[in-house]
Amino acid sequence: MARKRFDEMNCPAALALDQIGDWWTLLLVREAYYGVEKFSSFQERLGIARNILADRLERLVGAGIFERVPERPGADRMVYRLTAKGEDLLPVIVALVQWGDRWICGPGKEPILILDHRSKTPIAPLRICAADGRALSLADLRFRPGPGASRETLARFAEARRARA
Amino acid sequence: MARKRFDEMNCPAALALDQIGDWWTLLLVREAYYGVEKFSSFQERLGIARNILADRLERLVGAGIFERVPERPGADRMVYRLTAKGEDLLPVIVALVQWGDRWICGPGKEPILILDHRSKTPIAPLRICAADGRALSLADLRFRPGPGASRETLARFAEARRARA
Repeated sequence: MARKRFDEMNCPAALALDQIGDWWTLLLVREAYYGVEKFSSFQERLGIARNILADRLERLVGAGIFERVPERPGADRMVYRLTAKGEDLLPVIVALVQWGDRWICGPGKEPILILDHRSKTPIAPLRICAADGRALSLADLRFRPGPGASRETLARFAEARRARA
Repeated sequence: MARKRFDEMNCPAALALDQIGDWWTLLLVREAYYGVEKFSSFQERLGIARNILADRLERLVGAGIFERVPERPGADRMVYRLTAKGEDLLPVIVALVQWGDRWICGPGKEPILILDHRSKTPIAPLRICAADGRALSLADLRFRPGPGASRETLARFAEARRARA
């Protein structure tokens, strides 16, 4: 079986990964959360080559994750700001930060704290919840083909069902 | 400034990305959530070359995300199972799936549904919450240096504070 491109896969995680492009994307989004907007500031903070950064930002503008806008109305200087789609990557970033803190840095050694501005205390760990709010673990989840499942996805689920039977 | 390696960055998201390795990792973890364990099954479902798959799995065993164990006690055949650290990537995967469903596939076109086994209804969207349970948006968050911040991280935050003042 030939290796598939991510954008040919019938899977939202693979499609998301295809649009995000590579790890640098998430680091650019992270810097934008910190308030970075200028090309030169992204470059300085990430230590990334000019041509690679230009390529990444162009790709992300194309995917609708960043937009290139004047710094102020009428200004000549252009800056890069997150769109609603880009801001909505927040749970992806928070999930990575919390996993890294838990399994790599370790408790009490967090490089960065994400605080709620009101209470000035760290945000809660992300939880997977049912529609009624019950916390769920992996064992509580069932993966099923959805309304957008391709014939191949349907066949895979049917095969997995047979293998379990 | 020279480009840094991810594992030299004082950032849990970058460290997490360094251990996860590349997008294929998350797709391997996803397949493991579906119940895949055998080398040949991973290969078939992802359409990935044998040598690349062997390399990825070895790397993930090294990072403590998968473990290579006998299929049953005393069996010759070895399979790959997620460790607790690997299972804990669930919020990362769910965040990617939900973002992909929302911004790429679109409502009513989800390829895969993630259901709560008890209610048989889709899980809730991930929410960023304060310690007391209040839902938070990006504007409610503050990023601050943590107990494991390096001198460079501290300097960056100080610089950002000056720039805002």
